[in-house]
Amino acid sequence: MSDAPLETPFVRHLVRQVRAQDSYGVWEGKPDEELLAPFIVTRAQRREMPIIADPDPDLLARVEQFYAAVGLALEEATGLLGAPLMSLNHEGFGRVLMTTGRLVVLNLYLRDINRFGFESLSVLADKGAGLVDEARAMIERFPEVARA
Amino acid sequence: MSDAPLETPFVRHLVRQVRAQDSYGVWEGKPDEELLAPFIVTRAQRREMPIIADPDPDLLARVEQFYAAVGLALEEATGLLGAPLMSLNHEGFGRVLMTTGRLVVLNLYLRDINRFGFESLSVLADKGAGLVDEARAMIERFPEVARA
Repeated sequence: MSDAPLETPFVRHLVRQVRAQDSYGVWEGKPDEELLAPFIVTRAQRREMPIIADPDPDLLARVEQFYAAVGLALEEATGLLGAPLMSLNHEGFGRVLMTTGRLVVLNLYLRDINRFGFESLSVLADKGAGLVDEARAMIERFPEVARA
Repeated sequence: MSDAPLETPFVRHLVRQVRAQDSYGVWEGKPDEELLAPFIVTRAQRREMPIIADPDPDLLARVEQFYAAVGLALEEATGLLGAPLMSLNHEGFGRVLMTTGRLVVLNLYLRDINRFGFESLSVLADKGAGLVDEARAMIERFPEVARA
């Protein structure tokens, strides 16, 4: 069971997002779990991170990869791609909207972007899958808007 | 007729947005037309502006004021506030989504943000009013989603 999170649709899409940035092939031999290691932030690590600081580009890339993977897993589940739009202020607070056609499938307020991360791989997998489920429920509620 | 654009709902909201940033009262005596002058960019001025450059904060503030005014004029017209979310890359390309409830009322792709501006006050007024009309038409098409 310990490798189950890596087999979920959301995490597979996330791994693909991370590997897509490997322009020089340096991660080719790396296992998926190692590639996802920067997404895992334990409670103890979190306590040592600053709340307010200019988010670094690698962190912003991870946040973008995370929501892109949600949108792609949504497409796998529903046939409709979720397009994320993220807006962050320089203190790491912000919003993510994910849209499908004319429908807002996710409307998220982000805080503490500098502490972005998950306790474990299974928490990461659950969180991603939960967002996909939430977006899918919104599509089922307003299917014609999602296709408009 | 020459002052008519200043009397339109959209332009009145835009003036209010600009005046709201006047924390120190330095623009109190200034006429509206003077406050809106930075929004007016003639074709000749445009040609002299760089296409790709880091947008300066004043310019970004104007773009945000413009879309905030669209959202507020939409509220005046429909009772539903349009909330803009803007995402720009550092080269001045980007997107604006305006949402009302769960509905995307505007989905705009921006180019050339460094050249943001309008030929004249009446072009500015028409452009703003046109976006309000477009957003209103989308609300009329999917009223229950706009209230979700």
